[in-house]
Amino acid sequence: MKYGARNKITATVKSVKKGDIMSLIKFDVSQPIEMASVLTTESLDDLDLKAGDMVQLVVKAIHVLPVKE
Amino acid sequence: MKYGARNKITATVKSVKKGDIMSLIKFDVSQPIEMASVLTTESLDDLDLKAGDMVQLVVKAIHVLPVKE
Amino acid sequence: MKYGARNKITATVKSVKKGDIMSLIKFDVSQPIEMASVLTTESLDDLDLKAGDMVQLVVKAIHVLPVKE
Amino acid sequence: MKYGARNKITATVKSVKKGDIMSLIKFDVSQPIEMASVLTTESLDDLDLKAGDMVQLVVKAIHVLPVKE
Amino acid sequence: MKYGARNKITATVKSVKKGDIMSLIKFDVSQPIEMASVLTTESLDDLDLKAGDMVQLVVKAIHVLPVKE
Amino acid sequence: MKYGARNKITATVKSVKKGDIMSLIKFDVSQPIEMASVLTTESLDDLDLKAGDMVQLVVKAIHVLPVKE
Repeated sequence: MKYGARNKITATVKSVKKGDIMSLIKFDVSQPIEMASVLTTESLDDLDLKAGDMVQLVVKAIHVLPVKE
Repeated sequence: MKYGARNKITATVKSVKKGDIMSLIKFDVSQPIEMASVLTTESLDDLDLKAGDMVQLVVKAIHVLPVKE
Repeated sequence: MKYGARNKITATVKSVKKGDIMSLIKFDVSQPIEMASVLTTESLDDLDLKAGDMVQLVVKAIHVLPVKE
Repeated sequence: MKYGARNKITATVKSVKKGDIMSLIKFDVSQPIEMASVLTTESLDDLDLKAGDMVQLVVKAIHVLPVKE
Repeated sequence: MKYGARNKITATVKSVKKGDIMSLIKFDVSQPIEMASVLTTESLDDLDLKAGDMVQLVVKAIHVLPVKE
Repeated sequence: MKYGARNKITATVKSVKKGDIMSLIKFDVSQPIEMASVLTTESLDDLDLKAGDMVQLVVKAIHVLPVKE
């Protein structure tokens, strides 16, 4: 299985909340992971990031795709 | 600082690769985290997930927003 | 009408399911189509794709924008 | 393999164009497919869609995730 | 022309920067506009927003679709 | 506060509609703003945009992230 995406995170389901059309799942990720972000080079220059800097990675839940292999 | 997003992950910059328009940043996440996914209730039913199940969370790098607080 | 997007697919509404805030529409696409994906060059190298290879294209329903021309 | 997404389309790679950070892949989809869209109920009401209506489905290439199973 | 999206903003092209695969366009929006956001009800409760509150709306450029009508 | 995104828009909450899983917020943006879009260079060439051209910017509400600073 190979995905055309940089972020692949092994996780365990913690809770499920079912709605009429959309549902919300919470997961635990217990091991250290690597993540990746693509942004405009302009935004990168504004952030002025270099190795070792600490950031918050914000991801809307709608952009997280669970896959059961 | 409060974000209208379920996933907020503290991370450390590992590497930066600059391109003409877009750039790619890699991060290390060293602590255990909680993540959340929103999907259609139909997709949830197809996945048939319950607490304790293991999944892969796939996220395209373009959907990861770094914020420097 | 010109859209700044690579995928424009003619489709027929099959069903509509209304929810409180979000709704879900199903469509039939009866003719052969061309699709396009943008991903990181790193992900492309991992997938090692070349002309003729078969893949699954996975798209969350939230990313599909219906337009009535 | 089960994905938390409504759209799973079998496709054949037609061409690959590599860039510095991002790359673009074109695919052929030769068989009829079903697609799904999630949108706000307000947008649905504005579109006033019902079974049999014809629409254009617009999807930015960045939201298409190729998977090699 | 009707779009299955809540945000439709009339804008004027200010500059265009072409890259190998991706390009970046800047626009001016000169008139007052209305915008809309969909988020989880959990995130809404965390933000504790009510009419009159001031916020920043953050949108990655990749999610902005230009259409020439 | 620095975000890895090109669009940061100051806005005032106008209304909030709570749903079971997802909620919808409307905002007023009263001042002129600059916006940015990233798209494939192929799509840019199809649109044939140059400074001064008028377009519609279409953004699904799910891609708008409210932040309370």
